Amino acid sequence: MSSTELHNVSVCSDIGGELHRLIADLYPICRSITGEGLRETLRVLGQYVPLDLREVPTGTQVFDWTVPKEWNIRDAYVKNSRGERVIDFRSSNLHVVNYSAPVRRKMRLAELKMHLFTLPDRPDWIPYRTSYYNETWGFCISHRQLEGLPDDEYEVVIDSTLQPGSLSYGEYFLSGELPDEIIISTHCCHPSMCNDNLSGIAIATFLAKHLSMRPRRYSYRFLFIPGTIGAITWLALNEEKISRIRHGLVLTGLGDSGKLHYKKSRQASADIDLAAAHVLHHGAYQHQLLDFSPYGYDERQFCSPGINLAVGRLSRSPHGTFPEYHTSADDLAFVHPENLAESFDACLQILALLERNGTFLNLNPKCEPQLGKRGLYTMIGGARDAGTRELAMLWVLNLSDGSHSLLDIAERSKLSFELVRAAAENLQEQGLLRECLEFVRPMPSESVERTES
Amino acid sequence: MSSTELHNVSVCSDIGGELHRLIADLYPICRSITGEGLRETLRVLGQYVPLDLREVPTGTQVFDWTVPKEWNIRDAYVKNSRGERVIDFRSSNLHVVNYSAPVRRKMRLAELKMHLFTLPDRPDWIPYRTSYYNETWGFCISHRQLEGLPDDEYEVVIDSTLQPGSLSYGEYFLSGELPDEIIISTHCCHPSMCNDNLSGIAIATFLAKHLSMRPRRYSYRFLFIPGTIGAITWLALNEEKISRIRHGLVLTGLGDSGKLHYKKSRQASADIDLAAAHVLHHGAYQHQLLDFSPYGYDERQFCSPGINLAVGRLSRSPHGTFPEYHTSADDLAFVHPENLAESFDACLQILALLERNGTFLNLNPKCEPQLGKRGLYTMIGGARDAGTRELAMLWVLNLSDGSHSLLDIAERSKLSFELVRAAAENLQEQGLLRECLEFVRPMPSESVERTES
Amino acid sequence: MSSTELHNVSVCSDIGGELHRLIADLYPICRSITGEGLRETLRVLGQYVPLDLREVPTGTQVFDWTVPKEWNIRDAYVKNSRGERVIDFRSSNLHVVNYSAPVRRKMRLAELKMHLFTLPDRPDWIPYRTSYYNETWGFCISHRQLEGLPDDEYEVVIDSTLQPGSLSYGEYFLSGELPDEIIISTHCCHPSMCNDNLSGIAIATFLAKHLSMRPRRYSYRFLFIPGTIGAITWLALNEEKISRIRHGLVLTGLGDSGKLHYKKSRQASADIDLAAAHVLHHGAYQHQLLDFSPYGYDERQFCSPGINLAVGRLSRSPHGTFPEYHTSADDLAFVHPENLAESFDACLQILALLERNGTFLNLNPKCEPQLGKRGLYTMIGGARDAGTRELAMLWVLNLSDGSHSLLDIAERSKLSFELVRAAAENLQEQGLLRECLEFVRPMPSESVERTES
Repeated sequence: MSSTELHNVSVCSDIGGELHRLIADLYPICRSITGEGLRETLRVLGQYVPLDLREVPTGTQVFDWTVPKEWNIRDAYVKNSRGERVIDFRSSNLHVVNYSAPVRRKMRLAELKMHLFTLPDRPDWIPYRTSYYNETWGFCISHRQLEGLPDDEYEVVIDSTLQPGSLSYGEYFLSGELPDEIIISTHCCHPSMCNDNLSGIAIATFLAKHLSMRPRRYSYRFLFIPGTIGAITWLALNEEKISRIRHGLVLTGLGDSGKLHYKKSRQASADIDLAAAHVLHHGAYQHQLLDFSPYGYDERQFCSPGINLAVGRLSRSPHGTFPEYHTSADDLAFVHPENLAESFDACLQILALLERNGTFLNLNPKCEPQLGKRGLYTMIGGARDAGTRELAMLWVLNLSDGSHSLLDIAERSKLSFELVRAAAENLQEQGLLRECLEFVRPMPSESVERTES
Repeated sequence: MSSTELHNVSVCSDIGGELHRLIADLYPICRSITGEGLRETLRVLGQYVPLDLREVPTGTQVFDWTVPKEWNIRDAYVKNSRGERVIDFRSSNLHVVNYSAPVRRKMRLAELKMHLFTLPDRPDWIPYRTSYYNETWGFCISHRQLEGLPDDEYEVVIDSTLQPGSLSYGEYFLSGELPDEIIISTHCCHPSMCNDNLSGIAIATFLAKHLSMRPRRYSYRFLFIPGTIGAITWLALNEEKISRIRHGLVLTGLGDSGKLHYKKSRQASADIDLAAAHVLHHGAYQHQLLDFSPYGYDERQFCSPGINLAVGRLSRSPHGTFPEYHTSADDLAFVHPENLAESFDACLQILALLERNGTFLNLNPKCEPQLGKRGLYTMIGGARDAGTRELAMLWVLNLSDGSHSLLDIAERSKLSFELVRAAAENLQEQGLLRECLEFVRPMPSESVERTES
Repeated sequence: MSSTELHNVSVCSDIGGELHRLIADLYPICRSITGEGLRETLRVLGQYVPLDLREVPTGTQVFDWTVPKEWNIRDAYVKNSRGERVIDFRSSNLHVVNYSAPVRRKMRLAELKMHLFTLPDRPDWIPYRTSYYNETWGFCISHRQLEGLPDDEYEVVIDSTLQPGSLSYGEYFLSGELPDEIIISTHCCHPSMCNDNLSGIAIATFLAKHLSMRPRRYSYRFLFIPGTIGAITWLALNEEKISRIRHGLVLTGLGDSGKLHYKKSRQASADIDLAAAHVLHHGAYQHQLLDFSPYGYDERQFCSPGINLAVGRLSRSPHGTFPEYHTSADDLAFVHPENLAESFDACLQILALLERNGTFLNLNPKCEPQLGKRGLYTMIGGARDAGTRELAMLWVLNLSDGSHSLLDIAERSKLSFELVRAAAENLQEQGLLRECLEFVRPMPSESVERTES
């Protein structure tokens, strides 16, 4: 049994503060699914871990999609007839519909209004809107501002470019003892919003840093990618790597004060699903488990039927269930160091469990081995109960028939994984157990199609 | 995807009234498992749909059974010593135990009483009793009448015949695009009772008429048969057709004011079982699902282990659970046009769902296809939630791996079948989906026997 | 269908009293996992059934274990400086830690205390302690006595021997029509305690006597063995017999006033598990079912992964859940004739069910056979409900496709096993059913190991 210290979480004492500071650094940048804002974000992350920056040219075919033109923006505003900037990109990058085509025109309020987006029921907040694959333009403002706009002739300027360029993403690979990989994926295409998804970006970055300094059984691949098109691009260009991915997590929305939500993979009871449920339950986190659905973040792509990876998603409040979602109210005050720290801790515990899980064979399967002569069992008999340490050994021996992992045994015995793991280590040291090292990977469900045609 | 309008229910505005009128027409006829009353009933139905009238001779061996002698009755009464008819077949055909052998004798009350059946706890109602395979005779009267009968010498006459003849049944076959059949079976052997089973007969007749005028994917076979012996006779004489039957419904007791009850097939989760459950749930019918049991109506035969068809049963109040069951109180007032109409509607919805169900393959199974460029997805992103239309498309794409039907997808996503179906149609039109047309039929469970011997 | 009267329990009218008297006879004997006390106990049981007494020499290797030295004890005491026996083996054999090595020394209280065991929270009771595989010695006394012991010079004597000898056990084999066996195993190594496990010993003895006088389909093997080492010894020396064992019960703790607890086998839904659950439920016993766990009595060995027999355990209050467990309070007053009688009855009902269970084939699987012409069905039809007798026949016919046992049918139909069995007998007499006689035994789960290496 390989020694690994991943689970001995000796993180810096103020991980929550460090995460929040990284979020604050990244907050002002105007990100999108391509462009300089995205690149700059990846460069900042590169100061924490030696990220590989990848560039995929505009026009590259990725499955059913095409890498779009690169979008960059220098400035944008709406000026009234007195030359005052009544809407100003420099005060919030949410004011511009993300991926807006360039525009430079004068128009009356009536025409301008057809390009304005607001949130009537949250009159002080600016909404976040995008128009990636449809060349148009628009501004997002507070509803209160809209209501106060007088008729006037307005000068409308979006100083953006939509030109051939590339889609950028960051990748960080950490090799472990095994070629089998765990992927951690997080989207990094959202402009100035903190929970969605600077929280996920920050936690993934610090996880990468933390894991890089410790022994690892699994190899790890961290993906910092623009949502949807980034996941599709990575999967399309790395199909030969997919079969090595055994577990995965999509990280997003991890800084708000809601409880943790783990959304299961399409496989529903893959090891990542069991591990997350076990950690959230035994770690006494306030939490809720969600069934897989094909709506959400990049788990949509990782869990598409022809990919079908064991990738779940960890969030706090699920997207769309809190009013600040996709608005200017998802700001630095909306994410809290203590929540970020707890989310980071949960991720680490889940990964530690996967690292330390395994399937063992009882080498003495006929009757119990004599634990007492090996110093593993109380020598004075007759007491009311075996201790949980002894119970854990009995469970491991009884179920280690090659078809139950330690995690399965923990679930069945209702004991904590660490107790079961410790029992297995004791038994292995005594030569009573050996690990089965082969992995069985479920086939992607598209295989049905192949056999048919 | 074939265009079918079955689900666009444009039934005449007063289907409930029409059903009730047919019931009223058939009510006076004295039906039994053979004989002129049964034949006359089938002839009336022939005015609605071109029913094939089949005659199977007395003595025909049908599996373990033999087609019995044909029973006919002209008159029956009990006269007191003053020559007054105190029990008169002409006032209710329930007065005679169905299939009574002829009798013409005088006897005292004490002897007569041994042939009288009453319902002590419902003293004003006449019970319905039968004696098909045991040549005897009897009368059924109200308990109040029994209590008032003075000792006397009574003239007892049953002017019936039990002679070689035939068993009659009606069959109506509607061919569809597929050779695969849906059977609708209803018993038509009960004399003057409305719910059991003139309601089933009327609804099956109007379903047949309705379906005959619309495009159909499935072929349909309607069976109007005497209970038990009719189902056994049909199955024994049509064994080669059994393998074409994919779904089936036994219809009975569909006019009372109780809620709808669907009794599952022996297979328990066949498509017909899922379809009925889905329609009853999503159609917001007051309803209850019942597990299969080998007691009830002709589902007993269709679901015997060597036949094992996917045949469920739709009823309102289950037999034996309401006091009017098998009594003279199951009369024209016990069945209501609005209940008949609702039952008819539920049948039609279940059939429409089966017609429109199918299993599809996502032709772009790796990651999501780009719905936006096909006009299937909102172009301005960032809003709180996808609409249910978009959700339905994502579910269909995610689960269309060849092992989930649209009905499975509807159940899993908790969306309505029609929404899921519409999404599949949109996706198919865009070339993103194709239908798998092979059907897999479960083996009858008798196969166990074959492999053993 | 073989005639067996096992289920017609015509036990002597005072089985509870007889069981209690046997317990009282065995109570004074100082048993251990080897030695004369164990032998004497088996000799007493030999007066009830012709038990084979087996002796396995010290040093015999049994899987991972070695048969230990034989322990015998003549006397033991602690005398104070006035020569008074303050602790006396002759007043309770629990006073000596079972398997204590010989000792004969003087010592002050302080040293003596290191060898004294008490129960502080039950100050009047003597605990039961053992030290089988670790040569040491000790005394068990009430906590009140410990608190009253003055400092003094004590003479400490344990006049025991630990020498090469043998491990004794009793075995009683009853052959039946089938070579397939049911084992009944009970541990008999505990000194003066009644519930644990003279109750199990007494019930197993009377079951053996009862079964020996009746026709049996199964063969039965009764094992009266020292706990753990006895079970391991028997399994190690009788590996070739293991494959014949189809069902088994470990009996222990069957005399207290708690409700019955059935602990499932590792297989969880073996026939023994279903049978016990059915009997406890339909027999209206106060009871609870427990999932398998690898802690408890000799089911630990029978259900180890490389043995994996369908062996469950029947007890009343589970070990460790009542304060009297493993103390001097588990005495003759703690076990009650009425509880012993009820436990005996439950065992007999479970065995009777297994004897009478079977899997049948409906020889007329297409539609129902005509029960009426065989006198199996009411001839006057139309009544509200079939009787349960008729319902049971319909269930047996419907599910007798070779894959459902009578017990399965009873569970599915929610009818009692006896009703279902009677229906099957009626149908078999009529030639409508025949029994499938092949048994399918699950593989021990160690098979995984074999295929891997």
